[in-house]
Amino acid sequence: MDKTKPALIEAAPFTPSESAAVYRAIRERRDMRHFCGGQVDTDVLQRLLCAAHHAPSVGYMQPWRFIRIQNHDTRVRLHALVEAERIQTARALGQRESEFMQLKVQGILEAAEVLVVALVDGRERHVFGRRTMPEMDLASAACAIQNLWLAARVEGLGMGWVSLFEPAELAALLGLPEGASPVAVLCLGPVEGYYAEPMLAQQHWAQCEALSGLVFDDTWGEASALFAHQATSSQAKGED
Amino acid sequence: MDKTKPALIEAAPFTPSESAAVYRAIRERRDMRHFCGGQVDTDVLQRLLCAAHHAPSVGYMQPWRFIRIQNHDTRVRLHALVEAERIQTARALGQRESEFMQLKVQGILEAAEVLVVALVDGRERHVFGRRTMPEMDLASAACAIQNLWLAARVEGLGMGWVSLFEPAELAALLGLPEGASPVAVLCLGPVEGYYAEPMLAQQHWAQCEALSGLVFDDTWGEASALFAHQATSSQAKGED
Repeated sequence: MDKTKPALIEAAPFTPSESAAVYRAIRERRDMRHFCGGQVDTDVLQRLLCAAHHAPSVGYMQPWRFIRIQNHDTRVRLHALVEAERIQTARALGQRESEFMQLKVQGILEAAEVLVVALVDGRERHVFGRRTMPEMDLASAACAIQNLWLAARVEGLGMGWVSLFEPAELAALLGLPEGASPVAVLCLGPVEGYYAEPMLAQQHWAQCEALSGLVFDDTWGEASALFAHQATSSQAKGED
Repeated sequence: MDKTKPALIEAAPFTPSESAAVYRAIRERRDMRHFCGGQVDTDVLQRLLCAAHHAPSVGYMQPWRFIRIQNHDTRVRLHALVEAERIQTARALGQRESEFMQLKVQGILEAAEVLVVALVDGRERHVFGRRTMPEMDLASAACAIQNLWLAARVEGLGMGWVSLFEPAELAALLGLPEGASPVAVLCLGPVEGYYAEPMLAQQHWAQCEALSGLVFDDTWGEASALFAHQATSSQAKGED
């Protein structure tokens, strides 16, 4: 089936100390909303974007584009878009409106850097892996953002993904072409510290689900034998 | 604005050796299609799923569910679904049909483990971060899959994300409830080695884009000053 035999590099497991570092980044990464100004060095920002660009993508389409907000006025307008959607979301939440309004949901004005991630225009040309699921380009961009998030943890920076905005309005603000679509406003920069737990768990907005309840064998709802003996252990729990 | 001051842990950068390990995982992770049987130890699979569950999620909704395919007959049917979509995709590709048909696009029958990732039912209840962009739950699940992918690299295992299937047919095969939706068939297990470059680059399906062309300042199309002096350097390039 293969056109040619692909060139390979060795697939050895990482050393224990390397493994510990990667799992630590995964465990300590947080969706941050509190920032403390400062700045992100140019070489650090380049490393973070390079990490994002190493993400996998459906049909290797690399659909991600990054818009770095440098202009203060643009940042202020972006903040206003998010604030407007925060009010709309609060109203749509009904019973939880006032609880939601007490949460800090973005740090656009305080973060050292604001990056908008958008999907490229012309995506309809990419059929590989997207004929039945065109939304797979968003999945690829999310993998890139997760890489960026983990790299930010490595660098001691905080990052938050804000999705409270009207995409059409944000697209207009940044001059996106027809077919391109913003998917994330990323706040990035120095923080006083990371939340010890996900902020929305700390604030009792939602609880961490036990992993054992999220894994099935063969059929939806059939609890996996993988966690049969440790449904309540700490290993079966995750955070943020 | 905050309900309470969140509890924080220290946000120090990783040590150089820890940093190198995380960036190495990001760099060497590949979307694998070639597997060589074998098995994944139970404790390793638990660690991988725990890493996935540490992903961020919109409004902390944790929308991901994992279905481990244990039954051989189910795996064979799943393989048939993907094969059927492979043919449909090839036809839809027109000029590139025969080129596509020569690519290896899945390793469902050879991989030690097959996991289906699905979005939970009842997602319409989650409005936080999703009022204008309901697809953000898929983005969260993709972050979880990226964590799993990086952890698989750490463990010396290969992983591939297959999105060549009709979601309704896969949902029926696995008994998904109304509203739940499969987003990934993950092939996971031992491999002979990792592709030295992304397989679709090796096979000339697509080329790696220069990162400098994907980053703008303030407005779509305005090349970022961040890469002004290194548009052609290797640091500005990424892979897979």
